[in-house]
Amino acid sequence: MMNVDLNSWLLFRNAEQSYGAVEIVTQRDAQSQHRYTYGDFANRVRKLITALDDLGLSEHGHVATMAWNSFEHLECYFAIPCSSRVLHTVNARLSFEDIVYILNDADDEALIVPADLTETAERLKVRCPKLRHIIVFGDDASAIPASMLSYEALLNGAEPFSGDRNISENAPFGICYTSGTTGRPKGVLATHRSTYLHTLTVCAGNGPALSASECIMPIVPMFHVYAWGLPFGAIAAGSKIVFPTPSFDPRIVIHLINQEGVTKAAGVPTIWIAVLDELHRSSERLDGLKELLCGGSQPPYAMIRSYLEEYDVRLLQAWGMTETSPIATTTRLPHALLNATVESQVDYVAKAGVPVTGIAATLLDDDHQAVPHDGSSMGDIYVRGPWVLDSYMGGHGKESFEVEGWFRTGDVGVMHPSGVIELVDRTKDLIKSGGEWISSVALEGALMGHPKILEAAVIAVPDTRWQERPLATVVPKPDEVITLEEVQTYLLDLGFPKWQLPDRVEIIDEVPRTSVGKFDKKALRARFSPEA
Amino acid sequence: MMNVDLNSWLLFRNAEQSYGAVEIVTQRDAQSQHRYTYGDFANRVRKLITALDDLGLSEHGHVATMAWNSFEHLECYFAIPCSSRVLHTVNARLSFEDIVYILNDADDEALIVPADLTETAERLKVRCPKLRHIIVFGDDASAIPASMLSYEALLNGAEPFSGDRNISENAPFGICYTSGTTGRPKGVLATHRSTYLHTLTVCAGNGPALSASECIMPIVPMFHVYAWGLPFGAIAAGSKIVFPTPSFDPRIVIHLINQEGVTKAAGVPTIWIAVLDELHRSSERLDGLKELLCGGSQPPYAMIRSYLEEYDVRLLQAWGMTETSPIATTTRLPHALLNATVESQVDYVAKAGVPVTGIAATLLDDDHQAVPHDGSSMGDIYVRGPWVLDSYMGGHGKESFEVEGWFRTGDVGVMHPSGVIELVDRTKDLIKSGGEWISSVALEGALMGHPKILEAAVIAVPDTRWQERPLATVVPKPDEVITLEEVQTYLLDLGFPKWQLPDRVEIIDEVPRTSVGKFDKKALRARFSPEA
Repeated sequence: MMNVDLNSWLLFRNAEQSYGAVEIVTQRDAQSQHRYTYGDFANRVRKLITALDDLGLSEHGHVATMAWNSFEHLECYFAIPCSSRVLHTVNARLSFEDIVYILNDADDEALIVPADLTETAERLKVRCPKLRHIIVFGDDASAIPASMLSYEALLNGAEPFSGDRNISENAPFGICYTSGTTGRPKGVLATHRSTYLHTLTVCAGNGPALSASECIMPIVPMFHVYAWGLPFGAIAAGSKIVFPTPSFDPRIVIHLINQEGVTKAAGVPTIWIAVLDELHRSSERLDGLKELLCGGSQPPYAMIRSYLEEYDVRLLQAWGMTETSPIATTTRLPHALLNATVESQVDYVAKAGVPVTGIAATLLDDDHQAVPHDGSSMGDIYVRGPWVLDSYMGGHGKESFEVEGWFRTGDVGVMHPSGVIELVDRTKDLIKSGGEWISSVALEGALMGHPKILEAAVIAVPDTRWQERPLATVVPKPDEVITLEEVQTYLLDLGFPKWQLPDRVEIIDEVPRTSVGKFDKKALRARFSPEA
Repeated sequence: MMNVDLNSWLLFRNAEQSYGAVEIVTQRDAQSQHRYTYGDFANRVRKLITALDDLGLSEHGHVATMAWNSFEHLECYFAIPCSSRVLHTVNARLSFEDIVYILNDADDEALIVPADLTETAERLKVRCPKLRHIIVFGDDASAIPASMLSYEALLNGAEPFSGDRNISENAPFGICYTSGTTGRPKGVLATHRSTYLHTLTVCAGNGPALSASECIMPIVPMFHVYAWGLPFGAIAAGSKIVFPTPSFDPRIVIHLINQEGVTKAAGVPTIWIAVLDELHRSSERLDGLKELLCGGSQPPYAMIRSYLEEYDVRLLQAWGMTETSPIATTTRLPHALLNATVESQVDYVAKAGVPVTGIAATLLDDDHQAVPHDGSSMGDIYVRGPWVLDSYMGGHGKESFEVEGWFRTGDVGVMHPSGVIELVDRTKDLIKSGGEWISSVALEGALMGHPKILEAAVIAVPDTRWQERPLATVVPKPDEVITLEEVQTYLLDLGFPKWQLPDRVEIIDEVPRTSVGKFDKKALRARFSPEA
């Protein structure tokens, strides 16, 4: 068989020849929209390749983007790797100091930003001496400081690169840093091969199943694990793409879904909770939408059920992390459950699912011995596969690779006899009470099904008798009041044992979030359990 | 990223751990059915690996199967490559002399057959001295000659192989021979890597999109290019599998679709013509069926339309050949056509479509210069990609590889400005009339839409004035009579120019078929145009 490298050109190539008329829509803000075709996109990618070459960057030089979801960012997603350079997507919501650390740690030679981040970029330039160029998106030349380059001017001055470039499949493709909930962010270097293979997972039937028939709206940010790889999958498969506004607005999301014929949309559970809330308020429908792609944290049962029963929209949950590119498992409903009760279907989708083709998963105990697949024994989840990390950049975090050939994910779970994995918690969020473990995730998932509760996050607080006990922080729905007793009775009725019930409920205005939209339990612990 | 070989173990592994309860159904004949689970399948595959090891076959020894679609054949599909040996699927419908040639040419060490082929196997043993073992499927020990081994006895005597085996992704995986419509059959050697990557195409949204939610019925034989790779895709994705009877019966196919909840079924157009005919006769429905996967030759427009309008069943056409593993292009409907007219949708699906991710296609003229993508200029179709052949076994057929890095497919087509490829004909079936080319495929597709015509095949006959002229061989529907004039008027009304109309119509009882079910034009030419 032909010796063809699995690289970004294989993902990009058909976009030009086969999908030229497919649309890419960017909703810039509530009023303004940008719209062009794959043909336009491909031509601008080729111009950007030339422009990057002309800037004199190193052969595998690192080029950072710190940007919202947009067609320009998508152009960078392809032009940087296709030029043989390395795409480093930087999370714009991290602290300034973390961004400084990341740009320096990654040895980035250039930084690409939208116009609203030029001021941050200016300050970064001072602190990151290896940055040779800052390039700014946008037509408004007056918004671009003299010390920076205009992205549009670079493209205008460049001829489209012709032909393609031979890139080994083992060459570096991209860098993402972990969100760093413990310690410094750590760099994860993807190769062309790992990205190509992960992209096929994005297009696989058990994955998001992108195809030419789909219109995908990635709400998950492109600075967060490549928006779960959806932009690569969409371009490879010829899906129509719709980018919503940088600042999330459920009304705009609903409008775009109906206006553009979005068939699949992707975001963390809190996004879908807010959209559901808006749907209930507005009586809008979601006519063409078939599937929500959900990841990052446990989606509440009640929400999954509402979408399915009220809107005929299925949820596909995926589990993974930056270190797994990110998709490791999904919850594609088995054929045997197609005609099952709504309860059975929701129950299946709410777990972490089974590994996608290419990924192996196993549960090990602290002594690295296999944990039985009995649906109740907990173990650390380890994974392996061609798009799973084998070391962090700079050799950090060696403790994740102590078991030869496997990556320790830091998540704790059980495996059911059927092979379905159920997450119990992040190792560090488990609550240890009287020698037994309590899952904060299970409590939160249940609490968010309570009719008076919008959101809930559960943390451990130290306890002299039991070592740790659960505390529930709760955001009630507007005009609702909820008591500790109501919370406990509700959980008891759902079958939680008495010793797992929270002893305290704290009412809060909103759950604090990390830079990637997950519940920030570090912040909650600092507030409610400072002594922990 | 981890250095994990893309091999058969990655396709097999999740079948055990994640899909243990999924069913595999084999309809042996009208009365008897075999049914077991992925768990049973995986355990028997592991036993077969041990049994193959114990037979003392070489490390990468070639093991032939000559068998119908069945669970045992599926076990061989995985056990042979997972044991590091090479799966050689032999077409049982070839002539005896061709089979002798193929087994000897491939240096096969063992041959696995069902009980009804033991007599042929006995005769093959005499002519193929390198065959060390013949293994026979089935529980009936009395049906197995003493000179042969019982497949079931081998499994009963073997412990399941534990763990997995390190196999390089570049190791040989399987052998298929081309059907040899010109000259001797030629061997195509697939690697573990090419098979893995093609399997992801079988699971891709733009491909057959197999997933855990699907139930697939491969009617295409497993001795024909690995049944288009569907068995590998199904096992990798956890799809329920239903094998129909070895001898095709449209009533059994319809019954199984409804009984087992088949969502996708795969076969050549003649299969679907016969099923449609039976549906019209019986007034049966196809309730769970979503998609027909069709390949091998041009499906008639009228048939595609009937399935869509009357049964809400979409057709996905794929184009490819043994040398492309086989899927190279597909006709996944673009999002922009989801709400288009039935005519537009059928028109899209009836062409060859666009290359799947990983495959590049181009049109070249006789001087190897690019042909414009204008929808009318014809050229030879060349393809490249990681599951495209770079040489035949034994170095035969070098003329297919004259353009560096590309495989010449032997099909002639046009490319539309949209990138869609439309097949005109096999190079050797094109009709050259007065210096212009006439497509036999286009005439056949049109004729099979005539209300009085069941099937039609068009061939060239020599002509002193025009060099060649088209002759239409036609199978009328029961009790129908059709004349040359009716044929000509019908084609004129459809817009065919006068010079392309057939000058002769021959009424025949059935279109002769090749061993893989395609129209056998060699046989038609021998009958109606012996002087050609």
